[in-house]
Formats: sequence, structure tokens, C-alpha cells
Amino acid sequence: MIGAIEAGGTKFCCALASDRNTILASASFPTTSPTETLSRVRSFFQEAQLKHGTLQSLGLACFGPVGLDSNSHDFGHILNTPKSGWAHYPIVEALRTSLGVPVAFDTDVNGAALGEFHCGAGRGHSSLVYITVGTGIGGGAIIDGKILHGLIHPEMGHMQVPRHPDDNYRGHCPSHGDCLEGLACGPALGDRWNMAAETLTGDHPAWDIQADYLSSMCINLTAVLSPETIILGGGVMQYPGLLDKTRTRFLERFNNYLPLHERLGSLDSYIQSPELSNQAGTVGALLLAESARPESVSR
Amino acid sequence: MIGAIEAGGTKFCCALASDRNTILASASFPTTSPTETLSRVRSFFQEAQLKHGTLQSLGLACFGPVGLDSNSHDFGHILNTPKSGWAHYPIVEALRTSLGVPVAFDTDVNGAALGEFHCGAGRGHSSLVYITVGTGIGGGAIIDGKILHGLIHPEMGHMQVPRHPDDNYRGHCPSHGDCLEGLACGPALGDRWNMAAETLTGDHPAWDIQADYLSSMCINLTAVLSPETIILGGGVMQYPGLLDKTRTRFLERFNNYLPLHERLGSLDSYIQSPELSNQAGTVGALLLAESARPESVSR
Repeated sequence: MIGAIEAGGTKFCCALASDRNTILASASFPTTSPTETLSRVRSFFQEAQLKHGTLQSLGLACFGPVGLDSNSHDFGHILNTPKSGWAHYPIVEALRTSLGVPVAFDTDVNGAALGEFHCGAGRGHSSLVYITVGTGIGGGAIIDGKILHGLIHPEMGHMQVPRHPDDNYRGHCPSHGDCLEGLACGPALGDRWNMAAETLTGDHPAWDIQADYLSSMCINLTAVLSPETIILGGGVMQYPGLLDKTRTRFLERFNNYLPLHERLGSLDSYIQSPELSNQAGTVGALLLAESARPESVSR
Repeated sequence: MIGAIEAGGTKFCCALASDRNTILASASFPTTSPTETLSRVRSFFQEAQLKHGTLQSLGLACFGPVGLDSNSHDFGHILNTPKSGWAHYPIVEALRTSLGVPVAFDTDVNGAALGEFHCGAGRGHSSLVYITVGTGIGGGAIIDGKILHGLIHPEMGHMQVPRHPDDNYRGHCPSHGDCLEGLACGPALGDRWNMAAETLTGDHPAWDIQADYLSSMCINLTAVLSPETIILGGGVMQYPGLLDKTRTRFLERFNNYLPLHERLGSLDSYIQSPELSNQAGTVGALLLAESARPESVSR
């Protein structure tokens, strides 16, 4: 058995599986304090193992920023999150001790990117960017089949984008105010118009502004990373028409600067929805778990 | 002998060398029509070979966009450049035919990135971004020791950045108006203030605005690519104090979101000048030429 945890700032999703495609038990619960949350993780895996068999390894796709450099003192720690109680929490060590298995770990969005790459909309590509637009905005990249880490790891939501001319909203990011996340995450969408994002109708100007920011993001990803495909997931992207609006605005603004159409036939495969929907992170965590199995480590 | 051409939109720089460190002859001339320019390239290499020995291979670091995908019909072509006569020009085939040697080729900025990575400020790193701020703005990335290509290749100058609040300049990019290149390339700097960029004094507000745009660029590179170092080259970066202003503004705006200081000690090594100055492209082209030598191809 292998285990997966998609640890988000809002909820933890846990799964026990016999392989990446076969989840035998799963559960999710809100992210509260580290002690309480990890105690629920432990209970889930204890129960699931009794029923399905012994865990060999765990994959963790975790909200960030996180320490991924195994040579650094903060490897396996959550770094400076505003999430109460979690800053500098050594989550990898806590899980290894609690569950007694090797833990492979990466950011939540890198996990989702890995899931979509091997089992979802990224199949057949050699590079992709996965973006989630939800409570926050985060992104992960796969290049030549490998997760991009670099010095620390990408924090794509915190890129800077031009303001829409009709938008005076101050921005929602506690660190940067009006970075991309500050202007276009779910809470910003509601806060800007003083209403719940879910209640914004299809003809509300909110969606043109939202598509404008997401098209800037896609331009910046194209300009900097030149991925083969950009996969836009997360709760906000489920709004009907937003993906198409984003594609249209991207085309207008990038002005055919690179021959994307010639390469791809259609922009629909360049900027697309995830195939695994909200399972991408869990599938990615299972792929991480496969890499941490004792036999694959000793190979 | 190996040969290098750094083919820029303004000038062509040619070099004949016995290895990446030993240039025996070099010349540069303005980029005019393809026919005239390539005829001067041919003359240079004919003369240099008579004196120093026979060319085995050529490396070409070329202004773009260019076709880098060897499976595509436009491989080795310059794509939709506004540079008169050069759009869709099959430069690789023209050089191979003219000089009778294998040609390895990449973008000018990828060449410079490769040069700095192996022989300059990027030594000892596993990833970097190289940016040139001059007539245009371009950038190349090395990730895990390899040039980043992706679907086509990065076009970092065409990312979108927020406007400085005091800047109403319409932007200089023929395709996008006020993308990064449109707002912060050398010609934009002069055009905005109606004076030659070289005559702007150190206390002119131009430099705060310029540093603002370059700091947005560095934030976006950090957010998307997480490189180990960002190397800022090109004519505009030689302005005294601009690099420091850019670092300071980057720090203020990124607000210590990632523990760069902890990882690096100082931001001076994160955002830095090239070591090869204006030779980075030529050194990169020599490295490309080494990879195209007949014996290295047959290995």
C-alpha cells in the first residue's frame, strides 16, 4: 500500500492506495492546528491499514512555501506561512515519526503538476505548467519530465501583473497586496465586489477583469517558461466561460508573437482544464509515494 | 578550429577559436540584409581559416524568435521578426551551405546564458536566468545544466509587468506596446523622456522607473522559475547604480516572501552582472560549436 496526503491551507486530503490508479480509502478534513490535524491523519491511516494492508511509503503534496533542499536545515519544514501554527513546522519529520514510513514530499502544486503530467491532461507532453486559482494562486512546472525546483521552488501566484484599467482594488495578498494572487484569487474576487464570488453572474464585469489577470499570467508563463501546455485548475476556474474568456484575452494580448497556433493547431490544447480535476494533488502525492517505496529507494 | 556567430538584430559578431577560451580572430559588422551580412560572414571565416586553420563546426547564437524544433519545418529559420528581410530566413541552412560545416544553433540569449553558466557568473550553479537589457529585452534560462527550450523558446522580454504609477509612456514594443520590453528597453528609456538614454543624469526620475520595471521582472523570474541566480547584462545595465537600485526595489517589493537571504547570504549574488560582459554570446556560441564538432556528434 502507498499513501497520499494533499495538505492544503484549507483542508487535508488523505488516501490509501494499492497503486497510483487505485485508491482504496480516502478522507478529508479541515486544516486546523498541526497537532490536531496530524492526529486525524494518523487515525485515518491506522484504520485504513487495518482494512487494506500495510503502508510502505507516503507522498506529501504540501501547501507552501516549504523547504525542499535536502541539504538545508529547513528541509521538510513549512516556511513562513501566515497560517497560524504552521510556520516552520517540520511536517515531514512529524509524519515519518507518526506513520513509521518513508515520506517523499513536494509542494501541493508541484504534486498536482506531476499528477496531470503522468496521468492527466499533460500526458504526451514533455513540459507543462499547472496553476490552481482558488483560495490562493499557485503553480508548478514540469520540464523535460522533471519537477522544477530551482533555488527554493516557484511561487507563481506572486508574480506581478499589470492592473486592469477599471480596477482600483487594493489587493488581497498579505505580503504583496496586488500581486497576481492578490488581484485574482477567489477571496479577491469576492472582496473587490463586496459579494460572495459564487453569486457573481455571468455578465458581471468581474469576469472580464478576472480573465484579464489570468491572461497576463498565461503570457508571463509563456514568455518565461515556454511550456507545451498550461493547465488551469482550482475552484475559480470552474466558473462557466472563464477558461474561454482567458484564452481569448491571451490571444488578443500576446498578439500572435510566437507561432503557437502553427505548433498546436488550436489554443484549446495550450490553455486547458485539468483532467484529474480536484484529484491531481492526490494522484501526484501517490506518484511521490511510489518513488519513496523502500524497494525503489534501494534500487 | 571552431567558429562562433552572435547574430544580433543590430550587429553580427564572428569569432574563430581553437577552443572556448582562445579566440584567434574576430570581427563585427552591422546587420543589414541577409545576403550582404552572410557574405561578410563568409569573407571573415575564409580569411581567418587561411591564417589559423580549418573550421570544424560553427555555433550560432541568433536573434529571434527562431525555430529550434528539429522536427518542425521552420527549424533553423528566423521566425516573425520585424527586422526587414530576415523574417522566415533559413539562417542555419544558409550558413551550413556557405561555410560547409555543421551548425549548432540557439537564440542569442540562450547562447549568452550558456556562456555565463559554463564560463562566467553562473559557474557553480545548477540553474540561472540571463537577461539582456539593450535595444530589446531578452532572456534565456539554464535549468539543471540544460538550456530551457520548451514549446518554442522563452521570450522573457515580452512578459507583462505593472505600470509605474508616474509613467504614462505608451510603450515601444511593436507587438505588445507596454510589455516589459516596451517599457524598459533602451529605446523606450530615451523615447519616454524625449532625450538620448545616454544623456539621462543619475538623479533623473527615469532610473527609479527603470529599476521598478526591472524589479518586477526579477520578481516574475523568481516566482515562475526559481533560478539560483539572475544575471543582468546588456547596454542599459551598464548605467552606474542601476543594478543596485534594481536589487533594492526587488527586496522592497518581494517583501522577503521566500528565504532568499537565508539561502544566499546576500542579494548581490542573486541579482548580478555578467562576468563575460559583451562576450557571453560569443562564448556561448563557441560552446554550441564544440557540441557540433564532427567527433562529438558521432560519439
